[in-house]
Amino acid sequence: MNLPRGFRYATTYAGLRKVARDDLALIVSDEPAATAAVFTQNLVVAAPVVLARKNLAAAKGRVRAWIINAGNANCATKTGARVAAQCVAAAAKALDARAVEVLPASTGVIGVEMDGQKVLDALPRMAASLGAGFEEVAAAIMTTDTRAKMAFARLNRSVSVAGMAKGSGMIHPRMATTLGFVMTDAVATPAELRKALQKAIAVTFNRLTVDGDTSTNDVVSVMASGASGVRPSPKALEMALTSVLESLAKQIAADGEGARKLITIDVEGASSEAAAEKIARTIANSPLVKTAIAGSDPNWGRILAAAGYAGVKFDPSRTDVYLQGLKVCAGGLAVDFSEEELSKKLDERECSVRLVIRGAGRGKARMWTCDFTEEYIRINASYRT
Amino acid sequence: MNLPRGFRYATTYAGLRKVARDDLALIVSDEPAATAAVFTQNLVVAAPVVLARKNLAAAKGRVRAWIINAGNANCATKTGARVAAQCVAAAAKALDARAVEVLPASTGVIGVEMDGQKVLDALPRMAASLGAGFEEVAAAIMTTDTRAKMAFARLNRSVSVAGMAKGSGMIHPRMATTLGFVMTDAVATPAELRKALQKAIAVTFNRLTVDGDTSTNDVVSVMASGASGVRPSPKALEMALTSVLESLAKQIAADGEGARKLITIDVEGASSEAAAEKIARTIANSPLVKTAIAGSDPNWGRILAAAGYAGVKFDPSRTDVYLQGLKVCAGGLAVDFSEEELSKKLDERECSVRLVIRGAGRGKARMWTCDFTEEYIRINASYRT
Repeated sequence: MNLPRGFRYATTYAGLRKVARDDLALIVSDEPAATAAVFTQNLVVAAPVVLARKNLAAAKGRVRAWIINAGNANCATKTGARVAAQCVAAAAKALDARAVEVLPASTGVIGVEMDGQKVLDALPRMAASLGAGFEEVAAAIMTTDTRAKMAFARLNRSVSVAGMAKGSGMIHPRMATTLGFVMTDAVATPAELRKALQKAIAVTFNRLTVDGDTSTNDVVSVMASGASGVRPSPKALEMALTSVLESLAKQIAADGEGARKLITIDVEGASSEAAAEKIARTIANSPLVKTAIAGSDPNWGRILAAAGYAGVKFDPSRTDVYLQGLKVCAGGLAVDFSEEELSKKLDERECSVRLVIRGAGRGKARMWTCDFTEEYIRINASYRT
Repeated sequence: MNLPRGFRYATTYAGLRKVARDDLALIVSDEPAATAAVFTQNLVVAAPVVLARKNLAAAKGRVRAWIINAGNANCATKTGARVAAQCVAAAAKALDARAVEVLPASTGVIGVEMDGQKVLDALPRMAASLGAGFEEVAAAIMTTDTRAKMAFARLNRSVSVAGMAKGSGMIHPRMATTLGFVMTDAVATPAELRKALQKAIAVTFNRLTVDGDTSTNDVVSVMASGASGVRPSPKALEMALTSVLESLAKQIAADGEGARKLITIDVEGASSEAAAEKIARTIANSPLVKTAIAGSDPNWGRILAAAGYAGVKFDPSRTDVYLQGLKVCAGGLAVDFSEEELSKKLDERECSVRLVIRGAGRGKARMWTCDFTEEYIRINASYRT
C-alpha cells in the first residue's frame, strides 16, 4: 500500500504505562493539513478533548500535528488541563508550529494524575527524528488491544487514505469512539472533511459497541495534507472514508476485550432506520445474546427478547430471526433446525445475527459487536492493578 | 414467622426441567382472593403472561390460584397459547375453580415447545394434597437461582404479608420482574391492591438490574385472602408491600447470575427523581463498573464516566463519588485515598456506590445490582446445553 504523502510519524516509550512499550506518538503533517474531528458525547470530558476541540476551532481546521499518549486518559484529575496544555506547547515548539495547530489525545486510566514531564522529556528526540512507521503509531496508542488496527483505501491512482484506531473496552460510541486517526493526501477543505466524516461516522463507528460504555476520551480525526494535488468529489471522499472507518470499526469489535468473535447484527424491515438501529443496538448490547454466542449456543429466544425491550414498536409475530444465515425463528416462533450443526457454525470467528420484520417498513441498520467471554471480566476486574 | 392465612401450596417434579428438582407449583387461596399483578413490558410476551392478564381481568381481580412452572418459559412456541390454556383448565378442574380464576406463570428457556401433558399428569395429585410449605414453592420456581428468595412483614398483630420471588439472569424489570408472589391475609379490594403494588414496584423491582435484559415472562402478583378479617389503611398496605418487595429485590440482585456482591447505587442531588434514576440505572448497567467491583478495584473513573453518558444533564465538576462510604472523587477530580484499604473494603459482600451532585436539585434514586464475574459468562454461554 502507498501511504498518504505529506505525513510523518514518531513514537517512543515515555514511561506513562507500566510495561515498557511505546506509549507516546506524534502524527505530523509537513504543512498545515485540513482537519476535521468528532469527539466523545460523554458529559465527563477529558482535558485533552477539551483542548483539542478548542485548538481545532482556533486553527480554523488547519492542523500540524496530533500528540497522542496511551497509559493515562488525563481525565478527572486536578492537573489535567495544565498537563495537556504543557504537552501541546512543547510539541508545538519542537515542531516549529503554533500551539493551536497541535491537538492532544489521551487514552488509559481515568482519575490518575498524568506526569506531563515524561512527555516533555521525550518530545525533542521524537520531533528530531519523525522516522517511525504508520504501524508503530497504531501500536503505540493501544491499551488493552491485542493487535493494531489499520485500514487503507485508494480514491484513485494518486490519492490514498490510511486510518488507524485503538479501542477494546469502554466502546459504545456516540458520534465517535476511542481514538481514530485517518490521513489522506487528497486536497479538501476542513468543511468538506467535516461533512464527509460526519456521514461516514454515522454508519461505522456509531454502529459499534463492545460493552455499552461510552468513553470520556473519544476522538476520530481525518487530516488531508493535499500533497497529491488532487481534489476528489465529496461523494468519493465520503466513500473512501466510510470504507476505512468501517474496516477499523470491525477490527475494534473483533478485538473487543476478551472477544473471540466478531458479531454483525442486521435489522431489516423496521418502521425507520432509527427504529432499526435501536433494535440492533439493543441486541448488540445484550449480555445474554453475547454470552450465548460466546458459547456457540443458538439461543435465538434471547435475540427476540432483546428486540422486544428495545423500546421500538414492531410485531413479534411477523418477525424472523437468522443465525449464520439459517432461519431459526419464523413469525416469532421456533423453527426446526439442527442445534448441533448450527452450534458448529457458531464456532466461526465471524457470526451473523439477522432480524427481519415483515410489513412494517424499510428501515434497516447494521451494528458490529463481539462475543462476551470470561476474559472480558478478567481484564476489567483488575484493570488498574 | 406466621404465614398469611387462607393459602395452601403444592409442588412436584413434573419433568419439565432436566434435573429432578420440583418444577411445578400451585399457590391456592381457599376463597377467591383479591389479586393485583404487574407484567413484563417486553413486546415479546410469553403465552402464560397473555393468559394471566386476560384471566385476571375476566375474574375482576378475584383469583383462586397461580399455577407456576420452571424449566420452560412457554414463550415463542407454536403451542404456547394452547398449552397455557390446557394447564389452567386442568388446574381449575382439580381445584374446583372457574378457569378464569386460575393464572399461569412460566420461567425457563424461550423457544422450546412445552410438554403440557406433564403438567396435566401432575395436577390431580398436587391438588389432592396441597400440603407443601411456602419455602418449597419458592424453591420450585427457581431457575439459575442459587437460593430461594422469601420476605415477610407484619402489618399488625393479626395481618401478615409473605412474598417469594425467583430471578437471577435476564433481570432488568420495567414495571415488574421475573416471578414474584406475595400473599397477605389482609382484607383489600383488587383496586386497593393494584394501587399499592404499583407504588411499591416503582421503588423496588423497577430499581433492580442484573444484566439489563428484560424478560418475556415477568410477573409480580399480590393476593389478599382477607382471612384475618382486618382491613389495613392504604398507606400501611403499601408500606408492608414495599418492605417485602424491597427485601426480595435485594435478594435477587445478591443472587444475580455469578454474583458475589450486592451493589447498592445511590444518586443524590439530580435535577429530578427521573434524572437520578436514569443516572443510577446507567451506572448499574455498566459492565465496566460491575467488573471493577468484582475485582475490588476502586476504579471510580468508570462510575463518573457512566454517569456522563446517562443522557442526563449535570455538572461533573460539582459531582462527588463515594465508594463504601469513602469519598474517592470530589468535584469531578481525584481525591487522595488508600487504594489498598478501600480495595479491602470492597471485598465485602455488600458494596455501596454513591454519587452526589451539588447545586442541581433534590432528585434522588436508589438502584440495586450485583457484580459481574466470570461465572455469569459461564452460566450464560451454556444455558441450554
